[in-house]
Amino acid sequence: MLSQIARILEELVSAHPYFLLGVDSRDRIIYQSNEDGFNSIWALDPSSGDRKRLSTKPILWTDLVSDKRNRVVFTRDVSRGREQQVLGYVDLVNDREYLYESMRPLRIFGLADDSEKIVFTGATETDISIYMAFGDEVSKLHKLDAFAFVSDVRGDFVVGSGHLKRNPLSTEIFVYSIGSGVFRIFTPKEGSSNTNPLILSNKKILFSTDAFDGKNRLALLDPETGEITKAQFNEKDLENYNATEYIFYREFNNEIYVIGKREGRSRLFIDGKLLKIPEGMILSAYPDKNKIYFTYTSLTKPPRIMVWEKDSVREVIGSRFSRDIEERFGSVEFKYIESIDKLRIPTYLIRSNKYDETRSAVVYIHGGPWSEVADSWSIMIASLVAMGFNVIAPNFRGSTGYGEEFRKLDIGDPGGGDLLDIEASAKYALENRLGEKLFVMGYSYGGYMTLWTMFNRPELFECGVAGASVVDWEEMYELSDAVFKSFIDTLFAYKKELLRERSPIHKAENLKKPLCIIHPQNDTRTPLKPAMRLISKLMETGKVFEAHIVPDMGHVISDIDDAIKILLPALVFLNRCVRESKK
Amino acid sequence: MLSQIARILEELVSAHPYFLLGVDSRDRIIYQSNEDGFNSIWALDPSSGDRKRLSTKPILWTDLVSDKRNRVVFTRDVSRGREQQVLGYVDLVNDREYLYESMRPLRIFGLADDSEKIVFTGATETDISIYMAFGDEVSKLHKLDAFAFVSDVRGDFVVGSGHLKRNPLSTEIFVYSIGSGVFRIFTPKEGSSNTNPLILSNKKILFSTDAFDGKNRLALLDPETGEITKAQFNEKDLENYNATEYIFYREFNNEIYVIGKREGRSRLFIDGKLLKIPEGMILSAYPDKNKIYFTYTSLTKPPRIMVWEKDSVREVIGSRFSRDIEERFGSVEFKYIESIDKLRIPTYLIRSNKYDETRSAVVYIHGGPWSEVADSWSIMIASLVAMGFNVIAPNFRGSTGYGEEFRKLDIGDPGGGDLLDIEASAKYALENRLGEKLFVMGYSYGGYMTLWTMFNRPELFECGVAGASVVDWEEMYELSDAVFKSFIDTLFAYKKELLRERSPIHKAENLKKPLCIIHPQNDTRTPLKPAMRLISKLMETGKVFEAHIVPDMGHVISDIDDAIKILLPALVFLNRCVRESKK
Repeated sequence: MLSQIARILEELVSAHPYFLLGVDSRDRIIYQSNEDGFNSIWALDPSSGDRKRLSTKPILWTDLVSDKRNRVVFTRDVSRGREQQVLGYVDLVNDREYLYESMRPLRIFGLADDSEKIVFTGATETDISIYMAFGDEVSKLHKLDAFAFVSDVRGDFVVGSGHLKRNPLSTEIFVYSIGSGVFRIFTPKEGSSNTNPLILSNKKILFSTDAFDGKNRLALLDPETGEITKAQFNEKDLENYNATEYIFYREFNNEIYVIGKREGRSRLFIDGKLLKIPEGMILSAYPDKNKIYFTYTSLTKPPRIMVWEKDSVREVIGSRFSRDIEERFGSVEFKYIESIDKLRIPTYLIRSNKYDETRSAVVYIHGGPWSEVADSWSIMIASLVAMGFNVIAPNFRGSTGYGEEFRKLDIGDPGGGDLLDIEASAKYALENRLGEKLFVMGYSYGGYMTLWTMFNRPELFECGVAGASVVDWEEMYELSDAVFKSFIDTLFAYKKELLRERSPIHKAENLKKPLCIIHPQNDTRTPLKPAMRLISKLMETGKVFEAHIVPDMGHVISDIDDAIKILLPALVFLNRCVRESKK
Repeated sequence: MLSQIARILEELVSAHPYFLLGVDSRDRIIYQSNEDGFNSIWALDPSSGDRKRLSTKPILWTDLVSDKRNRVVFTRDVSRGREQQVLGYVDLVNDREYLYESMRPLRIFGLADDSEKIVFTGATETDISIYMAFGDEVSKLHKLDAFAFVSDVRGDFVVGSGHLKRNPLSTEIFVYSIGSGVFRIFTPKEGSSNTNPLILSNKKILFSTDAFDGKNRLALLDPETGEITKAQFNEKDLENYNATEYIFYREFNNEIYVIGKREGRSRLFIDGKLLKIPEGMILSAYPDKNKIYFTYTSLTKPPRIMVWEKDSVREVIGSRFSRDIEERFGSVEFKYIESIDKLRIPTYLIRSNKYDETRSAVVYIHGGPWSEVADSWSIMIASLVAMGFNVIAPNFRGSTGYGEEFRKLDIGDPGGGDLLDIEASAKYALENRLGEKLFVMGYSYGGYMTLWTMFNRPELFECGVAGASVVDWEEMYELSDAVFKSFIDTLFAYKKELLRERSPIHKAENLKKPLCIIHPQNDTRTPLKPAMRLISKLMETGKVFEAHIVPDMGHVISDIDDAIKILLPALVFLNRCVRESKK
C-alpha cells in the first residue's frame, strides 16, 4: 500500500502545472512552471517547440509579461520559505535575469510593472508600504498603514485597493501620484467593496465594485474628476453571464479582456463578447497577433496553456497522466448544500473511481478563508481522489467566489458560522453515502478549521489532517508582521477578545480521534511555535496524534518536494485511518 | 525516487522474520513472526506444512516453549507502546490463549517458566520485583531493589542476575527460594560479571562469568554448597572456539546446548561439540527426536528457521526477497578499526551494490549501548543498504559481544570515549572511500549518539537521523520508572553531575547540518518530552531540521507499521540529503 501511495503521489506532483505569463516581443510564450522541480519562468518558442528556463533559481511570485513585452517581473524568497523576498525580473530581450540583490528583503505582495518601473507592496514587521524599483534602485514611496496592495502602475500613477478606511467590511481604491506624493482614496459608496484597479490607456481606472447593486460589477473611475461609472461594453455577453467575480482583466490593443467567474468556473470575454472556448476554468489570457493564449485547468487537469485561433482551440503545453491515474478520477459535481442554519453552501463533490479501496470520504477545507475550491487543479484534492477517497469541498461562508455578502459572513466570526458549514458537509456526505467513514483535512485556514472541528465536534470525523494550521490566534498575532496583523484584525473585525475564544489550543483536551499535524518549519503566516505548544499539550494529555515538522519550507508549497513533504505523511496517515477503521 | 523508497521499504518490512520458540508435544514447530503484520506466536506442522496463529492479538515478549512442551509464555502491551504489559500464555495442548487480564500492568522483562509456574521480573514507577503466576493468580514474590532480572525457575528456585551489589561494574547471580523466601547472592569474585543463570536437572546452576580469567566462561554453581566451578564438557570444540559470549544455553535430554558467539557470528555446541551447520548467526535451538531446529540469520537474511538432520541442513520457514532487492546487498566485511585513541573497534561494513545511486555512506550507531551490530538481520541497516548507502556499523566501546572489559569502557563515560569511535568510523569511511558524503543514523542510544555527534562534531556528517533518542539524561531520569532509573545510574556509574554534561539538549546550538528527529509518541524509555524541548530549541535558533512524532507506538518497533513509521521519514530525509549534497 505504501508503494502505491508513493507512486500515485509522485506522479501527481510531477505533473507540472503551466501558467501563462504572456507572450514576448519574439512571439515566445512565457510561462511559469516547475519543470525542473521548482518554480521558474520559461519561454517556449511555438514554431520550433524549443523550451528554455529563463530564471536561475526558484522564484516565489511573478507578474504577467509587461505591456511592452520586454520583461517579466518576479520575486525570490531568500529566507528558506519565510517569504522574505527580493525583487527581480527576466529581461526577455537578452534572456538575462536581474535581481535587486542589495534591497532589504521584504514580504512582497502586489506586483505591478509598466515596462519601465516596478511598483509593489512590501511589508516589514511594523509597516506596509508601496515601493518602487526604477533603474538599479529600490525606494520606498509611501507608507500605507493598511491591509492593501498595489495592482497597477502606469506613468505617474500607482493604483491599488485595500481596507484603507480600516473598516473590515469595506475595501477602497487608492490612486497614488509618484510625482506629487498625493495619495487619494476612492469609493463609490461607503461600506462597499472595491478591488483590483487597472489603469487603462485612456487614463481611466477599471475596477470591481459591489457598490451598484450588491453584486460585483466592473466600474470606471476617472481619477481627475473622481467620477465613477459602470463599465459598459458593446457586447452584452459578460453582463448576461452574471459573473460573481472578475479574476483577470487587462487591456490589449485597446480591447479589454475580462475573465468572469461564477460557481467555480470562468469564461473569457473580449470587450464584453464571449470567446468560444470549452467551458471550464480559465486563469489568464494573452493575445498575440491572431491568436489568444490562455491558462486552462479543472479539478482533474493541472493548469495548461491552450491557444485559440480562428474559433479552434488546441493545447500548447500541458501534463498528461498515466491511464491508471486518469481512471482514478471520477465525476465532479457542483451543488449547494444546506447548512445547519439553512444557509446554502456552494460545494464541489469529487468522486473517486477507486472508492471501494477506502469506502471513506474526506471533507477538504480550503485555506484563506478568502479563497475557494473551484473547478481548478488542487494537488491536495487530486491526491485524495487518486487514493480512493470521495472528496467533499465546501465553500463555507467566508469563501470568495460567491459575492461579497457571502464572503463577509465570516468576518468577525471565524470558527463560528463556518463550523456549521463543515458540520453540514459531513452530514451531507454520510446521508448521501459518499463515505462510510469520514475524515477531514485542510491546510492553513483549512488546517485551523480541521483542528477547530476535531476539537469542537469530536465525534464528527474519524481522523483529521491539519496542515500549517492556526493553533492560537493570539500568539500568531504577536508573531505576525504588519500584513498578518492587519489580516487578523480584519478577519476578526478588531474583536480582540474573540482571538482567544476561537483558538484551538484552548480546546485540545476535547480531541477524541487520531489527529495528524503537519507544519512547515519556517512558516511566517501560521507560525510553528503555537503548533509546538499544541503538540506538547496533546502529548501531555495522552491523545492519539502524530506530528510532522517539515524542513526548509514556509507556508507556501512552492516546489515539488514541498508538496511531497506535506502530502506524503498526510496520505500515509489517512491510509492508516482506513485500515484502523476497518478493524 | 519516492516510489522506489516506498517499494524497497515495503518489501523489506514485509519480509517476515521467523524466530524459533521450540517444538511442542505434537512435534509442531512453535515460532514467533509478524506474518499477519504484528508479533504473534505461530505453529507449523512440518509434516503437512499447515500454519496456524496461536495468539490472538499483538504480543511483546515471548519465552521459549516450556520443558514439558505444553505452553509458551508471552507478554502483551496494553498501553499503546508504553510497555505496560500483562502476562499470558498459549496452551499448546488445546491451542488456546490465556491472559492474566486482571493483573496490574507492569514493565515485564526476564520471563521464565517451568511448565507449572511463570516467574518474571516486573517494574513499576518505584520498584523492581520478582513476580509469580501460578494457577489464576499473579503475586509478588520479592522486591529486588536493583537492576536485575529473572532468567530461570525450576521447582522452588528462581534464579537471575543483575547489579545486586549496586556496583555498576559487576553483576551477580541470585538464587531465590519461593518456599522460604530466602534470597541469596553469589559471585565467584568481587567485581566480576556473572549473568543468565540456568537451573539444570541436577540442580546445579549454569551461568556465564568473567571471574576466572577476565573472559566470559561458563561456570557451575552448586546452590547448596555455594561452590563455583568451571563448566567442563567432554568435547572441547566450544572451548577451542573461544567464544566471547554465550547467547543461548539450555538443557535438552541431559545434553547442554550452548550457542557461543564471537565477532558477531555464532555456533551451536552440544555438550561442547560443534554442530556442523553453515557459519553465520544462530539465535536459538530446539531438538526434536533426531532433528535440531534453529534460528539462523545474517545482515542480509531475515531470521529463518532451519533444521539439522543427519548432518544435512535445510530451511523450514523463511522469507525470500525479489531479485531486485537481493542484488542490492553487496559484501559484508568485519574488521577492527583504530579509534582516535588507538582502541580497536570491531566494525561491520556492509556495501551496497547500488552505491552509485547515492555515492554516500551512513555510519549506523546501534542502540543499547549494551548491544551490538552483529552479522544478524537489522531492518535499519538493510533499508540503508538497499537504498544505495554503504553502511559502517561500529561496535563502539560499551558494545556487547567483545568481552566485559570492552563493554565496561562506556560505564561512567557515555558520550565520551564512544564519541571518539564514531569519529574514527567516519574518518575510516572517508579514507577508504566508502562514501563521498557521510550521514549518521541511530535509534535509542544510537539516536543519542547521533545527536551527540551532530552537536559535538558538527562538521563530521552532512545529515543525521536521530530516532527515539535520549535528549536530556536529567529529564529522562525524572520521567523514568524504576528500571530505567537503575539503567541510567548504572550507565553513568552514579555520577549524577555527568547527566547534564552529556545531554544533547545543552549543545543544540552547535548544530550545523540538517537533522531529522523521529520519535515515538508513547516512548517510556527515551520519552518524547525532552525531544519536544529540543525541537523547540532548534526552531528558536533557526536550525535546519525536521521532526516526526509518530503515533500509537512506543520505544519498541514491534510491528510492520511501526517500522514504516520510523523508516519512511528517515529514508525520505536521507534521499533528500543525497540530492542536496549533489547540488
